[in-house]
Amino acid sequence: MLTNGMTEVLKIEYPIIQAPMAGGITTSTLVAEVSKSGGLGMIGAGYMTPNQIREQIREIKKLTSSPFGINLFVPNEFTYTESEIKSANQLLQPIYEQLNLQLNDSLDIPNSIHVFETFNEQIKVVIEEQVPVCSFTFGIPSKETIAELKRNTIILIGTATTVDEAVEVEKSGMDIVVVQGSEAGGHRGNFISQSQESLVGLMSLIPQVVDHVSIPVIAAGGIMDGRGLMASLCLGAKGVQMGTAFLTCIESGAHKVYKEAIMNAKEDQIVLTRAFSGKWARGIKNKFITEMEKHEDLLPDFPVQNTLTQPIRKASSSQNNADYISLWSGQSPRLAKNQTVKNLLDTIITEAKKINNYI
Amino acid sequence: MLTNGMTEVLKIEYPIIQAPMAGGITTSTLVAEVSKSGGLGMIGAGYMTPNQIREQIREIKKLTSSPFGINLFVPNEFTYTESEIKSANQLLQPIYEQLNLQLNDSLDIPNSIHVFETFNEQIKVVIEEQVPVCSFTFGIPSKETIAELKRNTIILIGTATTVDEAVEVEKSGMDIVVVQGSEAGGHRGNFISQSQESLVGLMSLIPQVVDHVSIPVIAAGGIMDGRGLMASLCLGAKGVQMGTAFLTCIESGAHKVYKEAIMNAKEDQIVLTRAFSGKWARGIKNKFITEMEKHEDLLPDFPVQNTLTQPIRKASSSQNNADYISLWSGQSPRLAKNQTVKNLLDTIITEAKKINNYI
Repeated sequence: MLTNGMTEVLKIEYPIIQAPMAGGITTSTLVAEVSKSGGLGMIGAGYMTPNQIREQIREIKKLTSSPFGINLFVPNEFTYTESEIKSANQLLQPIYEQLNLQLNDSLDIPNSIHVFETFNEQIKVVIEEQVPVCSFTFGIPSKETIAELKRNTIILIGTATTVDEAVEVEKSGMDIVVVQGSEAGGHRGNFISQSQESLVGLMSLIPQVVDHVSIPVIAAGGIMDGRGLMASLCLGAKGVQMGTAFLTCIESGAHKVYKEAIMNAKEDQIVLTRAFSGKWARGIKNKFITEMEKHEDLLPDFPVQNTLTQPIRKASSSQNNADYISLWSGQSPRLAKNQTVKNLLDTIITEAKKINNYI
Repeated sequence: MLTNGMTEVLKIEYPIIQAPMAGGITTSTLVAEVSKSGGLGMIGAGYMTPNQIREQIREIKKLTSSPFGINLFVPNEFTYTESEIKSANQLLQPIYEQLNLQLNDSLDIPNSIHVFETFNEQIKVVIEEQVPVCSFTFGIPSKETIAELKRNTIILIGTATTVDEAVEVEKSGMDIVVVQGSEAGGHRGNFISQSQESLVGLMSLIPQVVDHVSIPVIAAGGIMDGRGLMASLCLGAKGVQMGTAFLTCIESGAHKVYKEAIMNAKEDQIVLTRAFSGKWARGIKNKFITEMEKHEDLLPDFPVQNTLTQPIRKASSSQNNADYISLWSGQSPRLAKNQTVKNLLDTIITEAKKINNYI
């Protein structure tokens, strides 16, 4: 039951992928430990430069010979006006003051061309360094990119939030599709459906997707233990991708106050916001989300707003202040524990086997 | 596995409850067929008069000697102003015209006192007619009401959308708690948490609730088949409550165009709205929802808005027009079928046993 088409394709022992959380959480130790313990560790490389990516891949390869993976953000066209930036900065001004920060007029606002170039360079590094698995969020790369990766025998994973998106992922030639339920923490991965209407719970999403694609389906969102793993398999998934469960692990690079915030949160304190990055994402409601709530629709798109709020998140973090950090979390914070990766994985497998014997 | 504390308490064969959908869907035939086929049929009596309730209970008892249940809406205080009614009616005016309806100034707007009185009369009928099971939505009845029902050995079921609400249901002395995931169709049952923040997917909600209460937990939301049943049991639930799956059954009283709308819908066309009743509910996005979308926050509370839109829903229904009916549905419409209740239940159990052997 715990080995199937998905574990075979990925050459791993357990059908468990560590979600590729961006922003410094997926340390080399975290990724390597997951892979060494029988799962698939993943680098959250969305915000990383090609050089940082190359360095981390090499570091992980020194720590383990087991397969691991990397996730990249598929770039989308975006535009912004000077007046949008100005009014967004006006909203952020009081928070800058509160954190004793100077509003930085020389912030390097990204532009579409540059973002597409960086993506192509990231892909180049993934191929050169022969990363066994590459997953994508926010869309599907070009046919050429997919063909190039496949020629280099890299296993490809797409992300979908609806049946239609999963069908597109399969059509593009990817090997596996991760379905992101509404329970999931962090950014919504929708790329066809509207973000607010693609918030489908896994109990509904998994079976409907499984009925419409033939590649293995991996469930993501709120899964933290053996119960979630077994439930996903019953619904027709071949495995799970877990973020929050690994985020609070000892090996994760998440800030101490971030880990604590998750372990003290309740499921109904976790909300959707686009205040941090310009893209809808799920996290623990804190002061920043509350203060920006009324203006949510006025903020510039991803990744522009993300760049504007970066100094705030950085300062808040270095002041050990959880008020202005993006506290991304899935909807199961009560199940989060501060433990080693090995302990988490061993407990899941033991529990899954127990459920399997009982039901 | 399929018989447990929940089936014992309810004296049923399979751990499956037919959700008590209000508004004429739960015909006596539907309720009786579910109970005869091994599940628990339920009357959705929220909008029914005490006399209508008494009549239907007697009708069902003629059709089956198996246990069945009834659901009531727990009343909450509400107020409204004449100007709220006036501006809501202004919004509805173009729709009245489109349906060739006259705006009716003598509509019987409910008031709090009357709603509380009706609830007490409904409870009286449930006791007098000895309905085996009574469930509640939108809150917890008074201590006195619960004590009175328990003295009459009626099994009580509460509805919760978060851990805190489930804990309150258990504390109140109820026997079972239904947890309503964000996948669920129809009205949100939240009564402590804010409605938008209590949209927790079942993958997250079930295990977190199971860890905090000791009464049996029943999962509701998007469950349509043996996969959903087995997944719920893996997560720690003792059974499931299914609405949409029964709604499209041959025995259900739902309008033909309503059944067809569900069977043609996709999971990302099902949205949250308070346009129909003043309370947040999940249904298929149609013309009415789209037209009212911008004004959602201005509408009067439940049940006032429900009364104002009743003529519209009625006229739209009698014109076989799905544009202005409330098309409540969970997030799994692709799994809906037009079949007999017996066939639905037999298929679920066969599939559940197959999964149980496989995993």
